[in-house]
Amino acid sequence: MVPFDITILERTPATLDAWLRGLPEPAVRSNEGGDTWSAFDVVGHLIHGERTDWIPRARIILEQGERRPFDRFDRFAQFTASEGQTLDRLLDEFGALRRESLQQLAALQLTEADLDRRGMHPALGPVTLRQLLSTWVAHDLDHIMQIARVLATQHAQAVGPWRAYLRVISGQQG
Amino acid sequence: MVPFDITILERTPATLDAWLRGLPEPAVRSNEGGDTWSAFDVVGHLIHGERTDWIPRARIILEQGERRPFDRFDRFAQFTASEGQTLDRLLDEFGALRRESLQQLAALQLTEADLDRRGMHPALGPVTLRQLLSTWVAHDLDHIMQIARVLATQHAQAVGPWRAYLRVISGQQG
Repeated sequence: MVPFDITILERTPATLDAWLRGLPEPAVRSNEGGDTWSAFDVVGHLIHGERTDWIPRARIILEQGERRPFDRFDRFAQFTASEGQTLDRLLDEFGALRRESLQQLAALQLTEADLDRRGMHPALGPVTLRQLLSTWVAHDLDHIMQIARVLATQHAQAVGPWRAYLRVISGQQG
Repeated sequence: MVPFDITILERTPATLDAWLRGLPEPAVRSNEGGDTWSAFDVVGHLIHGERTDWIPRARIILEQGERRPFDRFDRFAQFTASEGQTLDRLLDEFGALRRESLQQLAALQLTEADLDRRGMHPALGPVTLRQLLSTWVAHDLDHIMQIARVLATQHAQAVGPWRAYLRVISGQQG
């Protein structure tokens, strides 16, 4: 039993699957211009997070605390790691890795006191395990938002005057 | 055969289902403060769109063109319509209505020429059927983005210093 709500974390792979698997290639491979990411890139990034970020950092906090800063997270690792892959394979891989991560999280048998233990982020400074796990959830949601935006951008011209009402295209907040 | 990519429209109900069905009540009922919407409210809004917006407006364009302005869309209808409902029932209803909408869209047997036909938006002025259908897609994505944001907002404090990296919480663009 993890004293932390993991329901969102469990659901992200199936959500991305229902949304993206089988979408036309141009839709999943388009980005927002420049060095922004496509939906395909985002799934690769989420895979890299499972491998190197969330559970590995949780272990560093539990085993070494603030003495051992986290490794920096490579925000561009997916560009080489995903090369030659299909989105379907990335979705499969993400689903398998996320299941494994959540099994490992459960096996840690975290207590409330564990959640208050601290680690050292290389740029942000001291952070708690609770903050790391909350960030894992918010990070999933951040990238779901990003995928919605990159898919909507592809319709930015086609919506015509409705653009004014669509924050996902206009970029307006609130 | 619709000369228009409806793959996103087909997927939204299953995406919301995988994401939201069975989430804890506080998660789906929280909003972003003030008169903003919860995930529950958003699903109610999408239901209202199926009933009164997309296909009904497409029919007005095809049958009456610019002579007959669209009815105004009630952005608050879901607050009374969803009262006493559960999220699971709203998700079921949205899925059924969306399937029906897409069957009706297919039955219209739209041609490229049809997509260029014009209707009259009560505030935005002349719009084409193609713009209406593109807006339907972008509108789904707009509300997926909104749900990601409203769910992430619930972790805004808990993420601590990571807030700076999470656009879904900080509201920063780009």
